[in-house]
Amino acid sequence: MNGAQSLVHTLVGGGVEVCFANPGTSEMHFVAALDQVQGMRCVLGLFEGVVTGAADGYYRMADKPAATLLHLGPGLANGLANLHNAKKAQSGIVNIVGEHASYHIQYDAPLTTDIEGLARPMSDWVRTCRSSRDVASDGARALEAARTAPGRIATLILPADTAWNEADGPSIARAALPRAAVQEDAVRAAAAALRQPGAALLLGGVGVRSAALEWAGRIAAATGCKLLAEFGCARMERGAGRVTPERVPYSVDAATQFLSGYRNIVLAGSSPPVSFFAYPGKPSLQAPAACAFTQLVGVQEDIAAALQAVADELGASSLSPAQQAQLELPALPTGQVTSQGIAAVLTALLPQDAIVVDESVSTGRAFAATTSRARPHDWLSLMGGAIGFALPAAVGAAVACPQRKVIALEGDGSGMYTPQALWTMAREGLDVTVLVFANRAYNILRGELAGVGAGTPGRRATDMLTIDRPTIDWQSLARSLGVEAGRAATLEELATQLRRGLACEGPYLVEVVL
Amino acid sequence: MNGAQSLVHTLVGGGVEVCFANPGTSEMHFVAALDQVQGMRCVLGLFEGVVTGAADGYYRMADKPAATLLHLGPGLANGLANLHNAKKAQSGIVNIVGEHASYHIQYDAPLTTDIEGLARPMSDWVRTCRSSRDVASDGARALEAARTAPGRIATLILPADTAWNEADGPSIARAALPRAAVQEDAVRAAAAALRQPGAALLLGGVGVRSAALEWAGRIAAATGCKLLAEFGCARMERGAGRVTPERVPYSVDAATQFLSGYRNIVLAGSSPPVSFFAYPGKPSLQAPAACAFTQLVGVQEDIAAALQAVADELGASSLSPAQQAQLELPALPTGQVTSQGIAAVLTALLPQDAIVVDESVSTGRAFAATTSRARPHDWLSLMGGAIGFALPAAVGAAVACPQRKVIALEGDGSGMYTPQALWTMAREGLDVTVLVFANRAYNILRGELAGVGAGTPGRRATDMLTIDRPTIDWQSLARSLGVEAGRAATLEELATQLRRGLACEGPYLVEVVL
Repeated sequence: MNGAQSLVHTLVGGGVEVCFANPGTSEMHFVAALDQVQGMRCVLGLFEGVVTGAADGYYRMADKPAATLLHLGPGLANGLANLHNAKKAQSGIVNIVGEHASYHIQYDAPLTTDIEGLARPMSDWVRTCRSSRDVASDGARALEAARTAPGRIATLILPADTAWNEADGPSIARAALPRAAVQEDAVRAAAAALRQPGAALLLGGVGVRSAALEWAGRIAAATGCKLLAEFGCARMERGAGRVTPERVPYSVDAATQFLSGYRNIVLAGSSPPVSFFAYPGKPSLQAPAACAFTQLVGVQEDIAAALQAVADELGASSLSPAQQAQLELPALPTGQVTSQGIAAVLTALLPQDAIVVDESVSTGRAFAATTSRARPHDWLSLMGGAIGFALPAAVGAAVACPQRKVIALEGDGSGMYTPQALWTMAREGLDVTVLVFANRAYNILRGELAGVGAGTPGRRATDMLTIDRPTIDWQSLARSLGVEAGRAATLEELATQLRRGLACEGPYLVEVVL
Repeated sequence: MNGAQSLVHTLVGGGVEVCFANPGTSEMHFVAALDQVQGMRCVLGLFEGVVTGAADGYYRMADKPAATLLHLGPGLANGLANLHNAKKAQSGIVNIVGEHASYHIQYDAPLTTDIEGLARPMSDWVRTCRSSRDVASDGARALEAARTAPGRIATLILPADTAWNEADGPSIARAALPRAAVQEDAVRAAAAALRQPGAALLLGGVGVRSAALEWAGRIAAATGCKLLAEFGCARMERGAGRVTPERVPYSVDAATQFLSGYRNIVLAGSSPPVSFFAYPGKPSLQAPAACAFTQLVGVQEDIAAALQAVADELGASSLSPAQQAQLELPALPTGQVTSQGIAAVLTALLPQDAIVVDESVSTGRAFAATTSRARPHDWLSLMGGAIGFALPAAVGAAVACPQRKVIALEGDGSGMYTPQALWTMAREGLDVTVLVFANRAYNILRGELAGVGAGTPGRRATDMLTIDRPTIDWQSLARSLGVEAGRAATLEELATQLRRGLACEGPYLVEVVL
């Protein structure tokens, strides 16, 4: 058994079922080992941003890490932006990055880079294998790191000679430790804070999964506190019947206004709300200065149990949860495509247990409120702000949950970052319906340019904010990569196209012309 | 004048004429400054790999740096692979990377990353602006770094508040220092070595531009030494009438065989040949152990002058250069598309002063010998081995040389890394003809799998090496991004399509089905 085989055995033995991959020469022994060791599904991405984004989407839905296989420093570099998103989402991933044979590095061959240096900013754990006999135990440590709550990015660098030289056999990764229990005094402090006027419970991490939300809803029923969620949530379980916290808005003005009435905010897997960007003369921290924050539980701890403990402390355990969404499917709207209209179509047609991967950026700001009354579904947000997330993450979500419908909400600007994901959807026959909102601009930046006080764009600045010259033909683009596609220029067409996408078993793309 | 304006003024004043860009919120003041300051052409890429690859191609043809504009850590990360290629090509680039306002970084907003940490592995110079009043001088230092011979990657990180706060005015970058002159004893040592049996002169850097090659050819005429070039050259001036060194082959077996007869190799802007990858039981260094290396001149020094000095030392200055290629345009071949056939079509049809950007990977191995007898042209190779180079670099070459025809030789696997470059070609009306060699595989990896002794690929390994399921329709892909396209399934069709591409003023893509 060589080092690569010992690693694949170790990962499979540790419960890793999927490897998203784009290998090169230095990873050929790992690739060969995939044939020799049973139990690992290997999914090819034509660009590494697809590979890492898919691993993020997979973790969010499977609650366990996938592996990635990346080719040396440049392959890792291409995957870094979506690793950044995954890190901010606290997804667990085991990256296997090939490296030159250890004795070859000194010669500075063309692909030689500082892989550890590249890995560190977007990883929680980095190690380079020193010997083929260490590969299995290093792999086990990487897997343990990746599944440390709430989920971590572990990057294992595998020099080619440690892959091809003889190893001793697989290693066994320790099972993930249970999440730490909340402290009793934190429970009492949170309960006391939530009884104060102007109280809110701000949820993050797995605090927006339905079990935790139920407890939060009971707390709100007992105290009258407001339930809030962070602007971005890695995976929110929502829709009819679910307790539905209100999301803190994106824009700094809206967020400060939204938070202005709160005086006591209890944090459960969340952090004090911070503006996405700084703007001249506007605050970085969005809550009022007089607002007190009480930390109930960190994102890595057992958030649902902590909320249950608070509910018990409040005597709220048998109450009916507050802020529960009622099923309210709107009539299908007609006419011009608007953000509100899209939200209504989505709300009406979202199937039970759909997974929505949301990178709708500017178009999607209005989606949250309406869609909370749709059939129960999961909503995955872009967590790190690095665009090019939704199509890859949809790949991973669909691999994790083959029985569920995945809907990717994508901007045209952001979609052009990782269009290669469409090919993987086609190859794997993934049940993903992609809606591309084609406003033919980096529309968010029009507002941001004004927001930072940079004035009105002239000709050259406008050229940097628009992508309408030439117009991108998303139908042809999708078909060129093996994905069937349609176009919607009205809300009626959007409903027809979305139904068509949901009716197929494989991928389908709808260009929604705004 | 704010910091951003002082920076754009400084760059324009220092001769930077082009900024390849994909900006976001934190770069909006720089974007606004492009409207307010005359003299900077701004070219949008829909993905940062396009931006950095274009800057590489631009430098190689313009011999001066362009700027790039990148959005925070993830934007830089997306551009790193082509920055790696640019660094290995020793291209000069000034990267401007936006950063959160300095006071905002502490809040760990979603896009917060360690930008300096990301920049360092692929940069020769990194600095973060500390104050708006330092931006101009920091920009001048970045430009000086970028144009330090032979060309360097300078990355300037610009916190948003240093862009929007008040500055004093532009700064003046010092002109590039002339390249250092060769040492006299190095000249004598090189001349002596080249008179020995089994001598070769191995050229790299600007040693493969025509002026330097002329001197090398006279040296060869006087000594009988062989003229060699490194496997990859950032820009080789070649074709009929040009002195044509032989390229060291890619494969380790071919390279060691090719170099086996040499005992004395003089290095002029080059390094001792090293294998691209390590292979079990095969050497990393390709020259025989008995071969002595004599360093005439480093890649950052004045290579042409050093070669002239050696020619003078040898009394060869008035000789006719050896190894001059003769014009030999083959008849247009017919029938099945083969690598040799493509080489013949290219050789027959390459127009005078064409710029060939070569990322043909496995298909293109046979191109070098035949095309050396074509009309004079420049040949740009992938220097860092990170695929996704040719389409972006063709953008930059075409922006640098609007009067010349650019031909990009692209694999289908590598082309899928940065297809967004096609859109920029369309938007800017760039005169680029793209040939995509569609073998529907990472064909190079089939050989590499065997080469590293990983055996014969089974089903899962084969899936990682092939991209034929689904087939990529390159014609539709190109048209979806605004680029007219055709397909060639025979050599006759290739000739027709290549002529059509060369006849248009704008971009044209040919899918060459292998």
